Amino acid sequence: MRKFIDDIKKLNIKFLDKKEDIYPYAFDTAPLKKEVELPFCVVFPKDTNDVQKIVKLANKFKLNIVPRGAATCHTSGCKPDRNSVVIHLSLMNKIIEINKEDLTAKVKPYVTVKELQKEAEKAGLFFPPDPSNLAVSTVGGAVALSSGGPRAFKYGTTKDYVINLEVVLPTGEILQTGSNVAKNVTGYNLTQLFTGSEGTLGIITEITFRLIPKPDKRLVTLCYFDSILDATRAVNNIINALIVPSTLDLLDKNTLSTIEKYNPTGFIEEKEAALLIEIDGSEAKIREDNEKLYTVLQNSGAVKIIQSKNEEDNENIWKARRSAYACVTKLKPNVATEDVVVNRSKILPLVEGIQKICTRYNMLVCIMGHAGDGNIHPNFALDLENEEEKKNFELVKKELFELAVSLGGSLSGEHGIGSEKKPYLEMALNPVTLKYMKKIKELFDPDNIMNNGKIF
Amino acid sequence: MRKFIDDIKKLNIKFLDKKEDIYPYAFDTAPLKKEVELPFCVVFPKDTNDVQKIVKLANKFKLNIVPRGAATCHTSGCKPDRNSVVIHLSLMNKIIEINKEDLTAKVKPYVTVKELQKEAEKAGLFFPPDPSNLAVSTVGGAVALSSGGPRAFKYGTTKDYVINLEVVLPTGEILQTGSNVAKNVTGYNLTQLFTGSEGTLGIITEITFRLIPKPDKRLVTLCYFDSILDATRAVNNIINALIVPSTLDLLDKNTLSTIEKYNPTGFIEEKEAALLIEIDGSEAKIREDNEKLYTVLQNSGAVKIIQSKNEEDNENIWKARRSAYACVTKLKPNVATEDVVVNRSKILPLVEGIQKICTRYNMLVCIMGHAGDGNIHPNFALDLENEEEKKNFELVKKELFELAVSLGGSLSGEHGIGSEKKPYLEMALNPVTLKYMKKIKELFDPDNIMNNGKIF
Repeated sequence: MRKFIDDIKKLNIKFLDKKEDIYPYAFDTAPLKKEVELPFCVVFPKDTNDVQKIVKLANKFKLNIVPRGAATCHTSGCKPDRNSVVIHLSLMNKIIEINKEDLTAKVKPYVTVKELQKEAEKAGLFFPPDPSNLAVSTVGGAVALSSGGPRAFKYGTTKDYVINLEVVLPTGEILQTGSNVAKNVTGYNLTQLFTGSEGTLGIITEITFRLIPKPDKRLVTLCYFDSILDATRAVNNIINALIVPSTLDLLDKNTLSTIEKYNPTGFIEEKEAALLIEIDGSEAKIREDNEKLYTVLQNSGAVKIIQSKNEEDNENIWKARRSAYACVTKLKPNVATEDVVVNRSKILPLVEGIQKICTRYNMLVCIMGHAGDGNIHPNFALDLENEEEKKNFELVKKELFELAVSLGGSLSGEHGIGSEKKPYLEMALNPVTLKYMKKIKELFDPDNIMNNGKIF
Repeated sequence: MRKFIDDIKKLNIKFLDKKEDIYPYAFDTAPLKKEVELPFCVVFPKDTNDVQKIVKLANKFKLNIVPRGAATCHTSGCKPDRNSVVIHLSLMNKIIEINKEDLTAKVKPYVTVKELQKEAEKAGLFFPPDPSNLAVSTVGGAVALSSGGPRAFKYGTTKDYVINLEVVLPTGEILQTGSNVAKNVTGYNLTQLFTGSEGTLGIITEITFRLIPKPDKRLVTLCYFDSILDATRAVNNIINALIVPSTLDLLDKNTLSTIEKYNPTGFIEEKEAALLIEIDGSEAKIREDNEKLYTVLQNSGAVKIIQSKNEEDNENIWKARRSAYACVTKLKPNVATEDVVVNRSKILPLVEGIQKICTRYNMLVCIMGHAGDGNIHPNFALDLENEEEKKNFELVKKELFELAVSLGGSLSGEHGIGSEKKPYLEMALNPVTLKYMKKIKELFDPDNIMNNGKIF
């Protein structure tokens, strides 16, 4: 393997191979395991050409290739093993073009979601996907996982904004998945096959996104309820009133109290449940929607309704909401965030079921999620050094996934499968589906060198 | 092959095999060729189980399987050859469920787009895709081609509403492409791989769509210009004003005069160009958008602006617009409708280029299209019995596709490739893309019995 490093040097590609340097590349935001496995080395390509050369070399030396962005996924989706070369995409971080006329953006993979949003905004445009970690998470990672976020209910997830990808395949070939036009049915939809494939089919080296006009304004509402039942009823009533909020998030009592404990704001109250609702659009549209919304909330058992008065209020409420994960990490040494999805009509049995499971195993859970699209994130506060808790957590996870699937749902709405949820995949996918997914993996990666061990 | 029919009889599956009965199943809406090739037989499965049995039998007798909905595609996408068994899905025509709480619809493939829209509307919901032939075209066909329509600019195409498919594969296996939840990244996105695959990978036997709340109202504007240049400038000005009309269609002089000639309405005028613009939403939203829109149109060289006053006016303008294709068919014995797509900024050179090509070959063309998403439909009026015109049309087509591709565009926005555009595929797709598309075809259909000869 020394020979691989020598060749990388000759190619003048930046790399790291000292133990102390590569340690940070051995994990992502999934709960840290005791046994950290270091990759063989980390390389930093500066362009597609470099990526291609690295892939060809990795092929020659039979190294596992692990593409890496900001590593903010919670699934060990970019966790290497000792036979891995981590391809860190940090040097490929340019926004190539924001095209105001065509409503498109062409970007390199390491641009952060926030950077793209900011640049789009300067042109009056909007890139809606907003994973909570958007200040650091990269668009390459967002495409690899089809990341969503609170705005997915109205605006969809990353997949709905990708129109073309340049991908370096495990063979070293360069693939264009589509054309740079928003509407296209020329052959199969390879773009969507690669979106959400978690780096197991190739390395995304360039992305063309479609953008949309930026809504003028937004209005954030925080609404408290005495029960999860009332909150989920309110969700249904909002949708029945044909209001389409950009965000319709649910927070349970534990989440609310944990936020207020570690990030006190004064406006977060320890009620049984809250909905965070954002409506957006023009001023007239917001006024109109809000009249309907306010009435619906009042008639749905709301015990307190707080509404933002200006953009500063909006930001403050959002800051509190986005801090939820960070606050949960303070409860115990570890936190595991899950990401199950069910239909909206099944949110109540899902949330109540999770609470029951956690009571049974004496597990501390803070439940929040995107109620609009049935995507629920239970955040488990854990001490993985505690053997009993560690064992219990395995049982909790299994029961959680069984519950979601029994309610007609699935394992992941926006975080993907990675290594963490791999053992449960057969619960959610029938044998024929799984068989053909594996065949597609084989088709693009016959030697199984692309992020191997992930998903399957 | 008699044996195949005997087996079909034993299975108690309805079929046709007499020449006079199967003639209508030999073509779709692509210009009729002199040499009609009849399929071997047409079968009418009543459920997924029947489809599976038919596929297994077709495999045994090495018959080509051609799935067929309403056959309104313009690409010979469901044209059989004499070794084909046409699977006509007309008995699988039920709406299984419209779920108001989950905003989903579960349907069988032969439900028409209009039926689905009507049923959704009864629940206050909306299925936006609206191909011009929606009164007859089926949702199975819409998924097979990812059909769009005038509303695609704001609402996207069929692909944006499919969340799960049941598919009978060429092997006879039954595949679920996803789960019945709107947000899902559990494994690869097989749903989008099958959407737009033109029946070459399997037979769609059940579809789960997501629906959205129905906008309260709409307002249709017909706006005339003295040049295509002015009309395309107006399109850009509308988008720069951050207005998102549901429809932003362009009609050229030939299209306008042909509509008025064969379907006189009084309000269609023979100007150089017109935009048909629909805005939708709540009353307040429409009022607000329309103020902006009207100003933009006035400042963009509009020579006449007609706006609907009520839903009846809306319907009348739409009826005229939808009759365009039917009116063009009256000009000459044949009509060929094409479907190229470019970025919005390239519409002007595309339309002017098409006009130049047609002038050079003395070809009558009526150009219309969805200017919002750069998807342009030139409708060529032809007499294919005239050898010179037939020859010229081949040259026109080739130049049209070369032009679209040279402008960064592609061969199809919403009609697909079928047999008609197959010879031009290499223009639009690079060899690596094409290679992997063919490998995917092989993966699902190793014996090449699924709608073979289509796309590739």
